[in-house]
Amino acid sequence: MRIGFDVMGGDFAPKEAIAGAIQAYHELKSDERIVFIGDKEQALALVKEHGLAEDAFDFVHTTEVIGMGEHPTKAIQQKRNSSISIGFGLLAKKELDAFVSAGNTGAMLVGSMFSVKPIEGVIRPSITAIIPKPNGKFGLLLDAGANADCKPDVLYQFAVLGYLMAKNVMGIENPRVGLLSIGEEKEKGNLVTISAHHILEESNQFNFIGNVEGRDFLSDKADVIVCEGFVGNVVLKAFESVYYVMKKRGISDEYFDSMNYENYGGTPILGVNAPVIIGHGISNAKAFKNMIFSARDVINSKLCEIIREEFKNLVPPTQ
Amino acid sequence: MRIGFDVMGGDFAPKEAIAGAIQAYHELKSDERIVFIGDKEQALALVKEHGLAEDAFDFVHTTEVIGMGEHPTKAIQQKRNSSISIGFGLLAKKELDAFVSAGNTGAMLVGSMFSVKPIEGVIRPSITAIIPKPNGKFGLLLDAGANADCKPDVLYQFAVLGYLMAKNVMGIENPRVGLLSIGEEKEKGNLVTISAHHILEESNQFNFIGNVEGRDFLSDKADVIVCEGFVGNVVLKAFESVYYVMKKRGISDEYFDSMNYENYGGTPILGVNAPVIIGHGISNAKAFKNMIFSARDVINSKLCEIIREEFKNLVPPTQ
Repeated sequence: MRIGFDVMGGDFAPKEAIAGAIQAYHELKSDERIVFIGDKEQALALVKEHGLAEDAFDFVHTTEVIGMGEHPTKAIQQKRNSSISIGFGLLAKKELDAFVSAGNTGAMLVGSMFSVKPIEGVIRPSITAIIPKPNGKFGLLLDAGANADCKPDVLYQFAVLGYLMAKNVMGIENPRVGLLSIGEEKEKGNLVTISAHHILEESNQFNFIGNVEGRDFLSDKADVIVCEGFVGNVVLKAFESVYYVMKKRGISDEYFDSMNYENYGGTPILGVNAPVIIGHGISNAKAFKNMIFSARDVINSKLCEIIREEFKNLVPPTQ
Repeated sequence: MRIGFDVMGGDFAPKEAIAGAIQAYHELKSDERIVFIGDKEQALALVKEHGLAEDAFDFVHTTEVIGMGEHPTKAIQQKRNSSISIGFGLLAKKELDAFVSAGNTGAMLVGSMFSVKPIEGVIRPSITAIIPKPNGKFGLLLDAGANADCKPDVLYQFAVLGYLMAKNVMGIENPRVGLLSIGEEKEKGNLVTISAHHILEESNQFNFIGNVEGRDFLSDKADVIVCEGFVGNVVLKAFESVYYVMKKRGISDEYFDSMNYENYGGTPILGVNAPVIIGHGISNAKAFKNMIFSARDVINSKLCEIIREEFKNLVPPTQ
């Protein structure tokens, strides 16, 4: 297994990125190999600072970096020698089994669309987020912000993607899938969610439990909560702000502390042909380590193959 | 001043409703009169239990109640003798200066549309929510759930309504108005918010500060945050769930405790021709008391007249 790792991605790269990769290295099996993609000189110096030899990792030297604020499509097209462009090139050639980066999220999305491409039948690949629950379980939200303005059939596909991830990567048996809305009754919502509810209800492919509400991210009503990316992004940032206000106010609580993004590291782009893991821009070493573990878990679960198989037989929903 | 008060609205009516009204009574001026609308026998018995005489309040006896789960339009049309229907009838005849209820929110909306009617030029009246900030200030969110599927010109009108409420009822000088989106740049968002951003930017009527994000409900970036009702409702319920999980986990903190809805009581329906205050279904005495104070403040601010005046001269935005 070869996990491509963008050394240059994130606000605290390469220092925290390398530190996290080294933490992961100590826990990975010998055939689980991390491939550093970025400035080799910088990366190697940091590896040696941590007392490791050069042969602990593979190195792919790159000369450009895509900045956090750059226009994704332009940057991917113009910076052919960036760590993100090179990473996707290697992933597409199957020289990597996964590609991991905490860099420009838009560029990661665009890069995955251009290189490994969406799985046939997937209208829009999606980014997920994991939300811990007070009872110790974990919930999956999608879409986390990649896709605003979704049509009902896209929400239906998000439900399929989220169900497959919850089942195969998170190990949840018969995951309960809920549709985010503003009332429990199926006639409550907006035009898109009301229509999506009908499709989901008729699909019969998985355990669709109906509408859930804003309060159910922290309840144990659903394992997977489906929404379009605008509201998903708003609600995630709202939860994040609660966490930071609590920290600032000196409140310490085991559950709320577990909301810290760094515990989950990264999240896969669901619906593209190879494992791609996106991390938070502010990732620290712990987050980078967990991103690498996410990549390993997605590879081991064979999620991409499972999604490909599922979408081969997916009957297009009628509205 | 005569404040119509639905004795039968809310999960804990009439007991908590009357208890709250009595708390308010002790703080109101002698010319600020509460008019109880509901089952007179029940209301009077509770008033006497609290050691007050009948003449402390006015009573309008009604024989029907609109349940929390009833279909709003049907209920308003069929239950002519319900406290909500009678309350709106008196408000429309100007026998009341405001109408307050913690009953069926949909029926309150429909009732206000049928009776006092939207102010000329207002496309969709809106419900607001007040969110306290860690620095002690208060933010206003609208729409809080009355209006899903808003067009850009509706979001623009919400901005105008929210600005007028922040300025005239909340006493915020030159309120900063932000548009909820998923990125600070004006090209970030969904089709509706991107278009609304252009209108707001060109309107020049108030201090539009551009896009804000999910994290800014708890920051002090904007005084008013404008969004359509779907995302507004989801995010409010998410915050509410955080509050309840904190209580359940025994976390006590002055700021997060202030998030308790009961401190704010009710919120006006903005854009109808008379003050209408909606309370939370789970209202307790303290919440009912604060609902009555909200009604008094809206009456005193002359908000409805100010909105009417503003919309007379409102240039329809071009998209």
